[in-house]
Amino acid sequence: MKRLLVIGIGAGNPDYITMQAVKALNQVDVFFLMDKGQSKDKLIDLRREICERYITDRTYRFAEAHSPERERGDVDYNASVDDLNRAKQQTFERLINDELADGQCGGFLVWGDPALYDSTIRILQAILASGRCAFEFDVIPGITSVQALAAQHKVPLNTIGHSIEITTGRRLGAGQVSDTDSLVVMLDAEDSYHRVANQETEIYWGAYLGTPDEILISGKLSDVADEIERVRKAARAEHGWIMDTYLLRKP
Amino acid sequence: MKRLLVIGIGAGNPDYITMQAVKALNQVDVFFLMDKGQSKDKLIDLRREICERYITDRTYRFAEAHSPERERGDVDYNASVDDLNRAKQQTFERLINDELADGQCGGFLVWGDPALYDSTIRILQAILASGRCAFEFDVIPGITSVQALAAQHKVPLNTIGHSIEITTGRRLGAGQVSDTDSLVVMLDAEDSYHRVANQETEIYWGAYLGTPDEILISGKLSDVADEIERVRKAARAEHGWIMDTYLLRKP
Repeated sequence: MKRLLVIGIGAGNPDYITMQAVKALNQVDVFFLMDKGQSKDKLIDLRREICERYITDRTYRFAEAHSPERERGDVDYNASVDDLNRAKQQTFERLINDELADGQCGGFLVWGDPALYDSTIRILQAILASGRCAFEFDVIPGITSVQALAAQHKVPLNTIGHSIEITTGRRLGAGQVSDTDSLVVMLDAEDSYHRVANQETEIYWGAYLGTPDEILISGKLSDVADEIERVRKAARAEHGWIMDTYLLRKP
Repeated sequence: MKRLLVIGIGAGNPDYITMQAVKALNQVDVFFLMDKGQSKDKLIDLRREICERYITDRTYRFAEAHSPERERGDVDYNASVDDLNRAKQQTFERLINDELADGQCGGFLVWGDPALYDSTIRILQAILASGRCAFEFDVIPGITSVQALAAQHKVPLNTIGHSIEITTGRRLGAGQVSDTDSLVVMLDAEDSYHRVANQETEIYWGAYLGTPDEILISGKLSDVADEIERVRKAARAEHGWIMDTYLLRKP
């Protein structure tokens, strides 16, 4: 039997890694690295650094594959995500079939937590359901950028007795969010916080959380929204990529 | 200056602790333990066990205080929470004033993540705002029971491109939840999953997650809701307490 470990390595800070993840890293023979192009090389480097730092007395290797990208522009969003997931599934099947021998253990290093806006678990379940590969797998949770955001701003995610909604910039921009007082927004490439009706809302924004490049800005939207847009644009130009997250809290 | 560290120690499994938390544990002079009565002794023991396991070459001590409890029964919920938080604030002020010398570091060990349904950050911010104590504090994120739940069931928390709502059993029971397809319910003492209108909804339920006593049940509500109620009642009777969480996923 082949065994796979889907290991959450936390968001940014190598110290976010858990003891459970360290033990898991030390069981892996082959790490599958999905290359997302030059701009995300730093994220691949961080994965290699985590392996070097935490794996002791064990031989392991990396198997790299080009990660399929979603078709952008004038296409149907759901169809493009379906296409992407099919392409990813084929890539994963090839890696598991070609790069892993029976009895070996393969590892996926997932940024943040594998259960939150990551496709690895869903793709592995789809492969198992298709019957085209046989393997066992386990999931190791990791600290997400949402948790890093709250910790660095020293703010709770919820208010007393109320709900939290975790959503995407796409949904916020389209007005497809609930009226809860605590809204966490991930994957926002469009500065959708400008669309929030009540500009008295507090925003707690963070980019490159947990890394030496971390940027934190908080305040009322009416005071800081333009600053966030400016800082975000400059940081993306400087680094070639940006990962940012924010919490919106109604007054 | 006094320094406080609010350290998320993860949910249940001592291996959920992060490297950052281990480093934080090793800076603490005095750990503040809040005793919640006999039924939760096991949680206090786990905190002591984590200190023993991960603190090396350092002298530390515990300062215990009785944790105020919320008044139950026929009282206004919000008023009882306000009373509780005032009482907690007084307890924290006393601990910080009496148990910690200038230049020393105090530690709060928080189950799960300090940002999710925990009052420590809120209380410390309120004390700072009152000006009655002076200190610096930092927050160390930890793996929550929500993440443990998803990892153990090997299921993502979100569906593609959709939101997640994290809420309480109280709100689910009162119908105060949004129509998102992924609802995570914490702190449910009333088996509120019985109130979900669409009993074709899938539930992923877990108790004592990440511990040797862990119980996992999943399936359609129409198939497993009664089983969960029965298992939950028996487990609470056996252990004297229960901590459980679940994900509801619409069909």
